[in-house]
Amino acid sequence: MNQIEVCFSPTLYSKYDTKDKIVIVVDIFRATTAICAAFENGAKDIIPVQTIEEAKKLKLEGYIVAAERDGKVLDFADFGNSPFNFTPDRVNNKTIAYSTTNGTKTIKTITDSKEILIGAFVNISVLFDYIIHQNTDIFVFCAGWKGRFNLEDTLFAGLLAEKLLATQKYTTICDSTLAAIDLWQVAQNNLPLYIEKAAHRNRLRHFNLDDVVAYCLTENKTKVLPFYNSKNNKLELKY
Amino acid sequence: MNQIEVCFSPTLYSKYDTKDKIVIVVDIFRATTAICAAFENGAKDIIPVQTIEEAKKLKLEGYIVAAERDGKVLDFADFGNSPFNFTPDRVNNKTIAYSTTNGTKTIKTITDSKEILIGAFVNISVLFDYIIHQNTDIFVFCAGWKGRFNLEDTLFAGLLAEKLLATQKYTTICDSTLAAIDLWQVAQNNLPLYIEKAAHRNRLRHFNLDDVVAYCLTENKTKVLPFYNSKNNKLELKY
Repeated sequence: MNQIEVCFSPTLYSKYDTKDKIVIVVDIFRATTAICAAFENGAKDIIPVQTIEEAKKLKLEGYIVAAERDGKVLDFADFGNSPFNFTPDRVNNKTIAYSTTNGTKTIKTITDSKEILIGAFVNISVLFDYIIHQNTDIFVFCAGWKGRFNLEDTLFAGLLAEKLLATQKYTTICDSTLAAIDLWQVAQNNLPLYIEKAAHRNRLRHFNLDDVVAYCLTENKTKVLPFYNSKNNKLELKY
Repeated sequence: MNQIEVCFSPTLYSKYDTKDKIVIVVDIFRATTAICAAFENGAKDIIPVQTIEEAKKLKLEGYIVAAERDGKVLDFADFGNSPFNFTPDRVNNKTIAYSTTNGTKTIKTITDSKEILIGAFVNISVLFDYIIHQNTDIFVFCAGWKGRFNLEDTLFAGLLAEKLLATQKYTTICDSTLAAIDLWQVAQNNLPLYIEKAAHRNRLRHFNLDDVVAYCLTENKTKVLPFYNSKNNKLELKY
């Protein structure tokens, strides 16, 4: 039986060992949802960028840059972090440099793994279909908010873990996984109302960005499965 | 309105600010439960000890030493971490040096606060009655397990937060607090069965220690309210 673990934030990463595991990076509001949207709309690949300086440098080199901090578009960037910004006319067949508050940093935190996949509600079925054929332990890595736990990433982790356990090919002894599943089961019947409670939802509304919430919580808007290619530091399409 | 926050593990502490807040340290299995039991049975005060070396030193100085790692009593110690070990004949009117895997380290992690209280199911009512008269923000600090999230400490945090919110003197914008409350509401109707799932429960059983589980999950076995006095590095009784 393969094991499932859920890690609630990059701050906790040092307490886990991800060697030989499939790591699924989750940042529902909004990095991993936006990455899926970008590929759905034809992006060639995406360079995940950790610092503002690095994003500026790539802008000067001619890349299209999507960058924000605390939900606000940076002044030198072409656009921000909303999945609605990655339109076909902007991204089709292009390489995008992408820097976000939590999501990019989460990818860069991973020191060892079998592979690193991008997960969101919008691509959960294709993600699930891929991983159940890999016979590998699963590590669901929530980006959280500024190093803390958040609800939306945890709910995704709970849904994915519930689906994996239902195959009876996986088990878990991880308290975070059990908690994520229970929270998903509480939230699932009215996800938008549940997320209404979430602190980040309040932040999104503050920046007039809550038009993306419904999209970010919708399952299976796309069949893309992005992965992180550490050899060239790019997010690419598995399929 | 005063704020409630829940921190799931010492690993996450650096992401919070606890200045001017009441910090409630929680390690249900078993440090904070055992500390309450020790005071209930007459202990004068308790020296929380972080390292094995420090515990050995205090033993040589003549103190009674309670010490374990990973659920096992250390060979030089007088007894281990079970609340059942702190019997009146051993602890009455004595100073105990006490070192545990998670609980002591959690106390020592706190860099700033208004005061530091010891919380457990066994003293939840006296704790609640005290804090609601303090007009102060509340930070529930779960010891977790080896730096990770655990269920039992989170369930306690959820129950306490639910009680505080019900007074309408408190509010929260903290996702961890909302999650803890939901988990408590899932678990409350059959707490022992729910905890059965928890990873630590499996660890306790492995060490034949699960006789303490029912006790640790029982509300109001005592009216003691221990606090940490940082001036003399001792746990003492508030009342």
